[in-house]
Amino acid sequence: MQNQNPVELIEYELTTFIRRAVYLDQSEKRTGNLERSSYLLLRQLDEFGPARVKELAESFKLDISTLSRQAAALEAKELIYRFSDPSDGRVSLFTITKLGKQLLKADQQKRLERYEQMLKEWSTQEKEMFGELLQRMNKAFID
Amino acid sequence: MQNQNPVELIEYELTTFIRRAVYLDQSEKRTGNLERSSYLLLRQLDEFGPARVKELAESFKLDISTLSRQAAALEAKELIYRFSDPSDGRVSLFTITKLGKQLLKADQQKRLERYEQMLKEWSTQEKEMFGELLQRMNKAFID
Repeated sequence: MQNQNPVELIEYELTTFIRRAVYLDQSEKRTGNLERSSYLLLRQLDEFGPARVKELAESFKLDISTLSRQAAALEAKELIYRFSDPSDGRVSLFTITKLGKQLLKADQQKRLERYEQMLKEWSTQEKEMFGELLQRMNKAFID
Repeated sequence: MQNQNPVELIEYELTTFIRRAVYLDQSEKRTGNLERSSYLLLRQLDEFGPARVKELAESFKLDISTLSRQAAALEAKELIYRFSDPSDGRVSLFTITKLGKQLLKADQQKRLERYEQMLKEWSTQEKEMFGELLQRMNKAFID
């Protein structure tokens, strides 16, 4: 591999990481019980509180039909529920249920343990630096 | 978001990144023309030379049937071709074609431009550090 510039290395490593993570998520060795899309939707509702489908779709940069399908699946499993927006009865809001929170926390713990294990040789400083750089990259993410 | 420890931030940001990247890859705004699995298979053959299906499956941590299906699709498009292993005629090797190399190079260029744009505010030192940390993470990736 010739990496004439650091961005080539970044592109190479991120693409490699995505492939492995996506494959792992689809395999029986998946970390946790929730699918990635469910995990992310629950995480969002847990972190930011009740939200409209439209808001969720925007924040995930997904189309509304995809988001609605994912939300309906979680609703059927009673991990989220919908209620009328008090400020506008025509609009529904989704919120996470107690069961949803429990499953989310369990999966978060398992994912955290996995990353702790992966990065166990790293210094605190390296982990902090890596987290900050990832955060900056996500903020600059181009659609 | 409470990030009591840096690994929580890393998990959070990587999960967010994967969601966005996977969605982008499936959207019409995808960077380049090849699907991610095709891109990666061509990249592997370009970088490491001819390989058996079994070797490719191992290096991608994919099962052989998935890899065979992906390879057959690239073969049908004449981006790779198969030939008998000179050291064992019963075994096939895959290698990248000239057309495959051309499409790979075009996509690599587009992806690189995208990352250059995303990280344009970063110093060289930050980019080098990020690339190194990503490389270390991938080497420690747990299946």
